[in-house]
Amino acid sequence: MSRIVYVNGDYLPEEQATVSIFDRGFLFADGVYEVTSVLDGKLIDFAGHAKRLQRSLDELEMKNPTTEDELLEIHRQLVARNDITEGLIYLQVTRGAADRDFAYPAEDVKPTIVLFTQAKTGLADNPMAKTGMKIISIEDQRWGRRDIKTVQLLYPSMGKMAAKAAGAHDAWMVEDGFVTEGTSNNAYIVKGNSIITRHLGHEILHGITRAAVLRFAREAQMKVEERPFTMEEAKAADEAFITSASTFVMPVVEIDGEAVGNGQPGEVTARLREIYLDEMRKAAV
Amino acid sequence: MSRIVYVNGDYLPEEQATVSIFDRGFLFADGVYEVTSVLDGKLIDFAGHAKRLQRSLDELEMKNPTTEDELLEIHRQLVARNDITEGLIYLQVTRGAADRDFAYPAEDVKPTIVLFTQAKTGLADNPMAKTGMKIISIEDQRWGRRDIKTVQLLYPSMGKMAAKAAGAHDAWMVEDGFVTEGTSNNAYIVKGNSIITRHLGHEILHGITRAAVLRFAREAQMKVEERPFTMEEAKAADEAFITSASTFVMPVVEIDGEAVGNGQPGEVTARLREIYLDEMRKAAV
Repeated sequence: MSRIVYVNGDYLPEEQATVSIFDRGFLFADGVYEVTSVLDGKLIDFAGHAKRLQRSLDELEMKNPTTEDELLEIHRQLVARNDITEGLIYLQVTRGAADRDFAYPAEDVKPTIVLFTQAKTGLADNPMAKTGMKIISIEDQRWGRRDIKTVQLLYPSMGKMAAKAAGAHDAWMVEDGFVTEGTSNNAYIVKGNSIITRHLGHEILHGITRAAVLRFAREAQMKVEERPFTMEEAKAADEAFITSASTFVMPVVEIDGEAVGNGQPGEVTARLREIYLDEMRKAAV
Repeated sequence: MSRIVYVNGDYLPEEQATVSIFDRGFLFADGVYEVTSVLDGKLIDFAGHAKRLQRSLDELEMKNPTTEDELLEIHRQLVARNDITEGLIYLQVTRGAADRDFAYPAEDVKPTIVLFTQAKTGLADNPMAKTGMKIISIEDQRWGRRDIKTVQLLYPSMGKMAAKAAGAHDAWMVEDGFVTEGTSNNAYIVKGNSIITRHLGHEILHGITRAAVLRFAREAQMKVEERPFTMEEAKAADEAFITSASTFVMPVVEIDGEAVGNGQPGEVTARLREIYLDEMRKAAV
């Protein structure tokens, strides 16, 4: 069955969903995005994603084509029209279509907004939560403003392919000797009593799931250290995991071919996943 | 008058020229491009651009949807159908449309190819060649593979806006204390007998115009040094200039508010521009 997607005010069959070849998202990667999970037909942390979208747009001096209420209504319409119980909703806003010029177009050029669904099974009951992920390390070659969630995703895409080629699930990126993050997720290690993850800055995405997981960890009296860590530290950790809007909390059991801890998903990771899913399901809209 | 553009085999009015919202050029900036100048209705250094396109595609393991002969024919058709005497032809190839996934799509997904024209006056007789450009310096925050001509152009676009805001024409980017290049051009200084420009590597675009200009400079017995230079060196230079497919050779007369040399376009720059235009017009196809 063809999906119904949303493009600039219209709900359309996906085959008819297009943007101009002059769209700056296509010509300049001049666009930002968000991905929101759906569980039990409800949106997980919609407010967090709407807030980060606004931040990305502000950082790039780009207009927001919708209010938060309108955006919520579009998300709900897409969930309903595509009968999504579990899955993802992808949202992209670009600076709009204009004749090609590095300089931004005139003020009256309207931003482009596109949303589509991806039905998924096993988001919550993901078998990988029981077996864990294998990751490799690669050099972080992305641009300097990873805190802005732009569609400049070619390097993460290349990283995912490098991981696949190495028989792994994902790659963690390393810059100046320290782990920044995964190709589409934030990276964590657990050592002793501490959950360690890189501090916020221009170097990493300010994960919506990261913020929630760290809040829940602190509420559960776990110790959180927000600081850079090395791959050597990660390999010597008791546990490792990632967070993202689509994987929630997912254990990492192997790094560059070496087992993390006992090579099995860790207890802290499992507990955080459980808390996150419980709490976010309760708060879903 | 509406332009006729080319999209995946069809010549279309620009209003009808679209790509799928699932195109990886739109979702992941997973695409590469070229811009070729047209003078007297003929293509400048088409072979150079076709060769670099192939290199970009190869570096990204992306398929080339056309042969060089087919590509030349599309360029010529667009020149003819849009009656272009002077202007630019923009070409973009992406990995094609597929449901969103960081991993590359299946082998049978066809690349997307888009071309369009931009009529320009004053490319050859550009008044700025007589007055010169003002540039500012900004930090180079782009990704690490600038030798691949991808559409990840948001930072150069932001740089152009920063230049405009400062009352300048463009920005030179600086990394680890050395100039890499301009936002959409290669950067040069002239000191004594030497033309100095950064050596090739992953840090800069391998300019087609750069290659031709350096060849002509050497043929004219000028001394060429391919090495990094600092902004301080640039401000103390006798002349400065840029090269690109659309500006050819263009003098820079002011850097961060300081005059370069006597603040007027330099003789070496003017001579290189003249040689370049003469030679490339003769070789145009």
